[in-house]
Amino acid sequence: MSGDHGHGPSTPASAELESIKRPLAYGPVQGDLALVEEALAEASEIDSSPLAGMLSLVLTAGGKRLRPALVLLAGQFGSYPVRKLTLLAAAIELLHTASLVHDDVIDGAELRRGHPTVNTCYRNSTTVMLGDYLFAHSAYLVTQTDNIRVVSLFARTLMFMARGEIGQDMSAYSLSQEPISYLRHIGDKTASLFATATEGGSILAGCPQEHVAALRHYGYNLGMAFQIVDDILDFNGDEWELGKPAGSDLEQGTLTLPALLYLRRQPGENRISTFLAERHPEALAEAIAAVRGSGVLMEAQQVAQKYCRRALRALEILPPTPARHTLAELTDHVLQRQS
Amino acid sequence: MSGDHGHGPSTPASAELESIKRPLAYGPVQGDLALVEEALAEASEIDSSPLAGMLSLVLTAGGKRLRPALVLLAGQFGSYPVRKLTLLAAAIELLHTASLVHDDVIDGAELRRGHPTVNTCYRNSTTVMLGDYLFAHSAYLVTQTDNIRVVSLFARTLMFMARGEIGQDMSAYSLSQEPISYLRHIGDKTASLFATATEGGSILAGCPQEHVAALRHYGYNLGMAFQIVDDILDFNGDEWELGKPAGSDLEQGTLTLPALLYLRRQPGENRISTFLAERHPEALAEAIAAVRGSGVLMEAQQVAQKYCRRALRALEILPPTPARHTLAELTDHVLQRQS
Repeated sequence: MSGDHGHGPSTPASAELESIKRPLAYGPVQGDLALVEEALAEASEIDSSPLAGMLSLVLTAGGKRLRPALVLLAGQFGSYPVRKLTLLAAAIELLHTASLVHDDVIDGAELRRGHPTVNTCYRNSTTVMLGDYLFAHSAYLVTQTDNIRVVSLFARTLMFMARGEIGQDMSAYSLSQEPISYLRHIGDKTASLFATATEGGSILAGCPQEHVAALRHYGYNLGMAFQIVDDILDFNGDEWELGKPAGSDLEQGTLTLPALLYLRRQPGENRISTFLAERHPEALAEAIAAVRGSGVLMEAQQVAQKYCRRALRALEILPPTPARHTLAELTDHVLQRQS
Repeated sequence: MSGDHGHGPSTPASAELESIKRPLAYGPVQGDLALVEEALAEASEIDSSPLAGMLSLVLTAGGKRLRPALVLLAGQFGSYPVRKLTLLAAAIELLHTASLVHDDVIDGAELRRGHPTVNTCYRNSTTVMLGDYLFAHSAYLVTQTDNIRVVSLFARTLMFMARGEIGQDMSAYSLSQEPISYLRHIGDKTASLFATATEGGSILAGCPQEHVAALRHYGYNLGMAFQIVDDILDFNGDEWELGKPAGSDLEQGTLTLPALLYLRRQPGENRISTFLAERHPEALAEAIAAVRGSGVLMEAQQVAQKYCRRALRALEILPPTPARHTLAELTDHVLQRQS
């Protein structure tokens, strides 16, 4: 029942209360995250008033700022050029926000982090363009690092993210998907941005190439675990904590790891295939209950743990600094998070 | 009746037949446009098969490649580094294509250049992500120029384009708009990309700063004229030539220069205000006919001519080369185009 790193039970729903209450701590870079907040606030201070209002709506909606923290933590293994790191950190958070905005258009989602989504306040077309503006602004921030290698890495990451979303979208409602294709899609759409956070931060800090590679590897595997836990929470999480209704992936026809593991256990007709055929709310509720009761959430959590072990192994060649300690701790936070 | 540059009648509908039939000629860079086509074809050659199909649908749908030609022509005023210019030219065409793809999602458009739009073949969500992929790929191509100044210019241009689209979108159906706000929106959404084509090409070619500024000024003003003519054609053009139905801007509630000039001539209740209130197809047809019959299309064409004169004046400080001659000729093509 216990997780691999001695951090308590392995399913999020049963995680110990104190770990839920403990805020995410980013160790040596905690203070400098205020600089990232400043950069994000600046990004919404533009003269065009309707756009400014929309930007402040999406940029002040909160969030754990995990990706920016990863940039700063990776920078700690080199010269820690705080201004350039702040620019990259803000750019990565903007890129992440842009992808959420475009996701929300697509899903017709009404809540994100408990706040109304942009597309419930504005029409769809405006929301698409707001996402484009955020993409552009993120790219502009990253060019201000003056590091063409990082800019290029950033642009390729956006390609991967879009490719992952398209791949996931094209396979919606398809019962013949394999878990391997799910893993490829989340690698593109989520883990690639985590990897770019740690790789980009270490490049800006002038780290030696083997440290850059190790930090990239850490980020990628942490991102895989993060997305798998996210997909577990969509079945198992508290709606109030999540700020969105449960089962929203399945409702959209998106088959995430728990659903695919359930389908492997229940070949032929089952609650998920029934829902995908009928698409009624009652069938959705029954499918969610079937997944919860089947034990596949635990199985999915073990896959997330496997990625966290890989992330921890990647850290081994790095010097044992407070930043490395914090990165190691983050694997626990990712596995235990409730929202 | 005659245009200011001795290039025949000033409204597109009455342009001489030979100018319609004459293909766009890009003078000294005509041959090198094949390199841009190769780069665009390469951009759609990726392993992921559904994405590859979508990319080839949007990238081989044709188009005049005017923006890529501007990059190459601007490069002729300096060292003409053909590989870097080709990368920027392809990037700018990809960025333009991305914005068309996102436009098509928004408008629910069914035809673009006479071909079905992507979003009639794929669902909206996939189309949004395809646009994102194209943005990303364009940014990646431009990073391959290794010129951070050009990359930064490119990112800022995307910000302007999104801001212009948002501004236009937020003022849809509003009768209180002034032509000045229309000009600001098209400056952002269209002219900024033309300006970046000529400015970026001249930066890559190592032109002196006063030539860079002149070429930027030329591109910006040509882009303004281009968009105004585009908006005239939406009222006046041949549906078969345009590959889309007439009056589609007004149908979407977008008030372009002809509509705003008409509203200024007809304050109070008029055919446009009636259409915006009723939104019936018959009211749309009557509004289009009223605009056509009012003389405002000629007035709008004169505004386009004014921008072309500014573009021509910007060229005066440049050496009198074949490239400059071609840029001057392009102002005629823009004013006389039928589609």
